[in-house]
Amino acid sequence: MSEVYAARRARLRDQCTAGGSAAAVVSRPANVRYLAGAAPRGSALLLGPRLDLLLCRSLPTGEPDEGRPDESLQVQVLSAAGGDAAVAAADLAAGQGADSLAVEEHHLTVARHRALTSVAPRLRLADLSCAVEQLRLVKDDEEISCLRIAAEIADQALGELLESILVGRTERHLALELERRLVDHGADGPAFPTSVGTGVNSGRGTHRPTDRRVEEGDFLSVCLGAAYRGYRSEIGRTFVIGTTPADWQIELYDLVFAAQRAGREALAPGAEYREVDRAARSVLDAAGYTDGLAPLTGHGVGLEIAEDPQLAPGAMGKLDACVPVTVEPGVHLPGRGGVRIDDTLVVRPEADGGPELLTITTKELLAL
Amino acid sequence: MSEVYAARRARLRDQCTAGGSAAAVVSRPANVRYLAGAAPRGSALLLGPRLDLLLCRSLPTGEPDEGRPDESLQVQVLSAAGGDAAVAAADLAAGQGADSLAVEEHHLTVARHRALTSVAPRLRLADLSCAVEQLRLVKDDEEISCLRIAAEIADQALGELLESILVGRTERHLALELERRLVDHGADGPAFPTSVGTGVNSGRGTHRPTDRRVEEGDFLSVCLGAAYRGYRSEIGRTFVIGTTPADWQIELYDLVFAAQRAGREALAPGAEYREVDRAARSVLDAAGYTDGLAPLTGHGVGLEIAEDPQLAPGAMGKLDACVPVTVEPGVHLPGRGGVRIDDTLVVRPEADGGPELLTITTKELLAL
Repeated sequence: MSEVYAARRARLRDQCTAGGSAAAVVSRPANVRYLAGAAPRGSALLLGPRLDLLLCRSLPTGEPDEGRPDESLQVQVLSAAGGDAAVAAADLAAGQGADSLAVEEHHLTVARHRALTSVAPRLRLADLSCAVEQLRLVKDDEEISCLRIAAEIADQALGELLESILVGRTERHLALELERRLVDHGADGPAFPTSVGTGVNSGRGTHRPTDRRVEEGDFLSVCLGAAYRGYRSEIGRTFVIGTTPADWQIELYDLVFAAQRAGREALAPGAEYREVDRAARSVLDAAGYTDGLAPLTGHGVGLEIAEDPQLAPGAMGKLDACVPVTVEPGVHLPGRGGVRIDDTLVVRPEADGGPELLTITTKELLAL
Repeated sequence: MSEVYAARRARLRDQCTAGGSAAAVVSRPANVRYLAGAAPRGSALLLGPRLDLLLCRSLPTGEPDEGRPDESLQVQVLSAAGGDAAVAAADLAAGQGADSLAVEEHHLTVARHRALTSVAPRLRLADLSCAVEQLRLVKDDEEISCLRIAAEIADQALGELLESILVGRTERHLALELERRLVDHGADGPAFPTSVGTGVNSGRGTHRPTDRRVEEGDFLSVCLGAAYRGYRSEIGRTFVIGTTPADWQIELYDLVFAAQRAGREALAPGAEYREVDRAARSVLDAAGYTDGLAPLTGHGVGLEIAEDPQLAPGAMGKLDACVPVTVEPGVHLPGRGGVRIDDTLVVRPEADGGPELLTITTKELLAL
């Protein structure tokens, strides 16, 4: 793995040099982890003119949720309690003779940026912008394999839940049980707070579980994901509780299913982000559900649960092969409930069989 | 409650006016919640020259973990998907005729700050600094009552765990079970990720649960807290597994207990932060455990789990009455394990009976 991290850093360094910066400080945790193998709390990575260095507040533990630092990388523990790793990195960059330093202006606060300036007043600060996020877009085999395992864990947790009695249990308890099962099956932890919505709460994009209990006749929407070696999957399904779904439930389900399939089928290398969004959105639009739709049809996943690209009407850019994304349209009818169906897939060329579905739990409408 | 929020905003507005700013944008979530009653994801609060406004990406849900917005406050949902509430607030402040705007430079990123400047180029941006954090230091009765309930919930969750069989179970499972019990007893959720460390992992400040199983003879350290209406408590205890603690375990426990008691007894209105730290730290120092001690002996709690004040050697300032803090010294012996004891207390004057202990689980060394 060490060569992988070194290669990533070399690519970033080339970009920095081309941009006129002799050194860079990476502070955004997912970016630090991508380049260094680990991102202990409060750490920063210096790509120095002479030496790369991971600066931490305490020695990395190597726990799965934190990662294990690349062995070829020197680690330095900050001596001052509460010291700022990015500020210390700027100081070291100046000490290594750098005259310019690229920083992540979309991550550093104004106050930290000022502290960097004041420890190294002769250093010209530039904006690294989202250079590391750009590198992170296309995943390598190792990353996709982590995502595949993360998706499998979530499938297992969800599958077990479906075998249990659901009526009478609260959204909160179902969410907690799913999270326990994720860990049972080897997740570092949940990829994001598990969402369970039943009845009137079903079908909402980012519903936080409440004390509402599952009742006969409810739609039940579940959205969960596992983090595995830092990589985060996402799956969302909607079920109906009881023996026979109502007609409106079947209709709404079929509609969202058709929208989600259209989105999945639009995934291909070279497809525009907004075309994928449009493929799914237009199905819901045509049925009159224009208002209240979520602003995104899907998003990238990786070391963060919602990373680039955004599959949205205004998004600019085209998909590449090996970009993992979610496709997650939904419709929520206020006061009644709704349906959301969410998969994680990897964009693949037609020749390789098209998009690879990572989350394989059935999308038939199950009556539980 | 509405008057409480309005009064808090009035105090902040007075400070801003005195500092020469006609308006302010508050973006740090805990600060938004303190002033507005709720902090939906991505929201910001404008204290305008003519009107206060809570700007949100979507309508507040009123869920306990998000809070319910003050009814006297106007709420505006951003129309643009992915719009930045702080940027929109700056735009509105300029529209209301403000010529200067105080912003939280310790929270806004350099990139967001620049976006504020570009939507409202004639607005002079100033630094609100930690003005809201300062207001949040001393808690009112309502806040302390939430903390008291949060502490009680954690006591209950911990109490139930102690009645169950622990040997053979993993740190991860014990942590998940504690979190489930917190929710069972009415918490919005855990106040922070629950820490369970057994054997060699015991006594470490911020240990993340692993798959290590509890064994006979282990020290078992647990640190958890509940969030209740946004307020976060913290309790940490260390137990010994098996019938008879070893001599070194009893000695180490007594030492940490003595340090923790010294810290608790040093809590009084007017006491310097660093004196409280010294009271606890000197006990451990005198026993030769100088190296490897945590940089803090304790910290404030409230809407955030680690807020001001810091009880640390270099901290400047004095405690006031009605400031809730933790006292949590510990000693970890690498390769053997250790002890940490952690309470949440409210500083009270001697005349009122001295510090009020919120976390009442026994601190005797229990053999489980």
